[in-house]
Amino acid sequence: MNEVRKLINITDLSTGEIDHLMDLADDIMADPTKYQDACAHKILATLFFEPSTRTRLSFTSAMMSLGGQVLGFADAKSSSATKGETVSDTVIMAGCYADIIAMRHPKEGAPIAAARKTTVPLINAGDGGHFHPTQTLTDLLTIHRKLGSFDNFTIGLCGDLMFGRTVHSLIEALLRYENVKFILISPPELRLPEYMKEKMNRSGAEWHEYTKLEDAIPELDVLYMTRVQKERFFNEEDYVRLKDSYILDREKLEDAKKNMIIMHPLPRVNEIAVEVDDDPRACYFYQAKCGRYVRMALILYFLGIN
Amino acid sequence: MNEVRKLINITDLSTGEIDHLMDLADDIMADPTKYQDACAHKILATLFFEPSTRTRLSFTSAMMSLGGQVLGFADAKSSSATKGETVSDTVIMAGCYADIIAMRHPKEGAPIAAARKTTVPLINAGDGGHFHPTQTLTDLLTIHRKLGSFDNFTIGLCGDLMFGRTVHSLIEALLRYENVKFILISPPELRLPEYMKEKMNRSGAEWHEYTKLEDAIPELDVLYMTRVQKERFFNEEDYVRLKDSYILDREKLEDAKKNMIIMHPLPRVNEIAVEVDDDPRACYFYQAKCGRYVRMALILYFLGIN
Amino acid sequence: MNEVRKLINITDLSTGEIDHLMDLADDIMADPTKYQDACAHKILATLFFEPSTRTRLSFTSAMMSLGGQVLGFADAKSSSATKGETVSDTVIMAGCYADIIAMRHPKEGAPIAAARKTTVPLINAGDGGHFHPTQTLTDLLTIHRKLGSFDNFTIGLCGDLMFGRTVHSLIEALLRYENVKFILISPPELRLPEYMKEKMNRSGAEWHEYTKLEDAIPELDVLYMTRVQKERFFNEEDYVRLKDSYILDREKLEDAKKNMIIMHPLPRVNEIAVEVDDDPRACYFYQAKCGRYVRMALILYFLGIN
Repeated sequence: MNEVRKLINITDLSTGEIDHLMDLADDIMADPTKYQDACAHKILATLFFEPSTRTRLSFTSAMMSLGGQVLGFADAKSSSATKGETVSDTVIMAGCYADIIAMRHPKEGAPIAAARKTTVPLINAGDGGHFHPTQTLTDLLTIHRKLGSFDNFTIGLCGDLMFGRTVHSLIEALLRYENVKFILISPPELRLPEYMKEKMNRSGAEWHEYTKLEDAIPELDVLYMTRVQKERFFNEEDYVRLKDSYILDREKLEDAKKNMIIMHPLPRVNEIAVEVDDDPRACYFYQAKCGRYVRMALILYFLGIN
Repeated sequence: MNEVRKLINITDLSTGEIDHLMDLADDIMADPTKYQDACAHKILATLFFEPSTRTRLSFTSAMMSLGGQVLGFADAKSSSATKGETVSDTVIMAGCYADIIAMRHPKEGAPIAAARKTTVPLINAGDGGHFHPTQTLTDLLTIHRKLGSFDNFTIGLCGDLMFGRTVHSLIEALLRYENVKFILISPPELRLPEYMKEKMNRSGAEWHEYTKLEDAIPELDVLYMTRVQKERFFNEEDYVRLKDSYILDREKLEDAKKNMIIMHPLPRVNEIAVEVDDDPRACYFYQAKCGRYVRMALILYFLGIN
Repeated sequence: MNEVRKLINITDLSTGEIDHLMDLADDIMADPTKYQDACAHKILATLFFEPSTRTRLSFTSAMMSLGGQVLGFADAKSSSATKGETVSDTVIMAGCYADIIAMRHPKEGAPIAAARKTTVPLINAGDGGHFHPTQTLTDLLTIHRKLGSFDNFTIGLCGDLMFGRTVHSLIEALLRYENVKFILISPPELRLPEYMKEKMNRSGAEWHEYTKLEDAIPELDVLYMTRVQKERFFNEEDYVRLKDSYILDREKLEDAKKNMIIMHPLPRVNEIAVEVDDDPRACYFYQAKCGRYVRMALILYFLGIN
């Protein structure tokens, strides 16, 4: 790895690299102690120009679990950005103090600009409504561990499919694999954008659209829930009529397969009832755990340690 | 320890456990190097939904002094709470990234709700005006180390005894021991609540109330100072008349025992004059130091390491 | 070192001590692994009552690169200062939880007040418009490594020389050495204060003033750029007329010596054009790197490890 590695979008990783990261994460989960000093004397900088506890903590936990250390900032107010510094300069500066960078920024494209001059590996930890590749890696690891492979399964994506970046990235990643069927469940206003549907068509993937979760749930192997924000609806009437359809509860689960897995990128507000937490199909907290291990794998890989 | 340990209120610890923590803290203070790697590869999450530098830093220092690492957030703004996540979900999430949690929350009862589903040990680091058990452990260690035991002494509690949670918890803890006499020194408006007095009565503890510190100080073995906030007084007149009585200075100390110890949970504003800092009886900074060691003991105990 | 060490102003260090720190930093840069565990089991507290990402991260990186750990706060809002605690009390408290303190405060003189009662070594990480000694050490290390010594060279200081604390400290430090010539380049409103000129005169140092960078650049061995804030100008007319003169670009560099070094304390806004970054004379990011190593040297020295 002579070139400095950057992960801006999940498409920056080849299928071979994703497979390598899955294998590495599996190996870490099987025996974390084997890796507990792998990043000793290495430093991760977490540059969060926008707060995101979950993502920041999972990166931090990942680096610490490798024996490394973590520095950074949790919001833009305590960054030099307030003094007019460019993101690019901040990233070069961080490269003087750390061996690898995870960066989150509210502005789409900021990580691309920042990555141009970085002297150390840089990971996009989310940029506005754009990319969030480590969430996708997290989702992939969860699916891979629960289903055993990425081929031949049906995934339901439920909620706001128009603006939900995690959904778009996950679809893009899964299109690389064989025979994944996509069930798109959303209010009419929040359907998956046309360009995403075209991508699926070009890949020859099968997909169907539903308005109600109830109608789609029986055929799913994976149900990926996301939030539907009230303000996304065009009118109050639609919202009142449809909102309950995007809340997963015990009743709706009755028609689901017994080994379906329920995922959610978290945080949830009310789109999954708390009663579902005790269902053996609930995987969203397991998914959070996967986020720690896949980030360990990514850090190792980008630092050229594995 | 098969069950996940939680410390919400000091009463969650048996007398035997408190004694064990005192002994363990003593042993750590005698030879900290013996414990400096005891928590290697362990992570503490400090979830502070409300800022509290002193408590957060003492937990952090405790974990680091055990060779462990620390992640978390210092105020709610950089937590997922702003996205509508429940405290319970945040705690489950933190349990995916850390081995033990210390949590502070402005809402009374929040840690109880949070603790219900935690998968890792959880320590309440203060919840509004309610409980703050590690402050009580800190106070207990200070008294134990300075007096040699918890039996047969007279403690004066001075200041706002109505709202001061540290005072209530300390009284509850000391009621378990033999022959502790309580001297309650406060403005009439800020006297200890009736239910606390009933608790003392039921335990058969001797207690007396004073309005002026000057009158009470000669008989004390321990003087525990707390802040009296101006806004707690019912009228300006009372405040002006009484406020100096709750400020400890060299003059008032003249009538005190030569080996009395002066405690304060800190931060102080003006309730102890700076001139008192050089008095050998001043123990409040020593108390801060004890806070680090007793938290080390608690972390070790809850992680099942000691 | 029986006395607790404090670094408030660069003048707190003897010339011998500065030379020692330069040598130590050189040695660290030559072989960082030799020092990677030197501060194992030691804790640095970073008390930042005012945000400053760059300085905080460089201290943090320095301590971590020595195998030590770091705790603290990044702005006053999450400190006990909001509860009315004095800076002196905060520093004593931090001394209960850490082995060494780096403190930044918006109020001039705050570190002096704080240092009076500290029980552990204390480093001023910047106090308002006053002192910032570790920036000066950073600047010195950069010059020393690039020029090979502190004697016999010409340094141009460009920008706001009236309020720029880094410039004043650097001049004071360089006056200790032989035959350093100072070229002062600033708008008339922002010239170096008289008392600084008197200091140079008393030291017998040669100095000249210029209004335009173009006129001064050919004779410089070092060009130290600082920001000129628009609001510092007395009138808009002057600002428009002069502002471009304080922006370094490729064109102005044409007349500069081939081995001149360009420095800047960072963050920059627009006073150095991005095109200059690729010029081999650009040293400002190297300077940021030096900041990490000289702070490593300082921490080691103050902890009595080297």
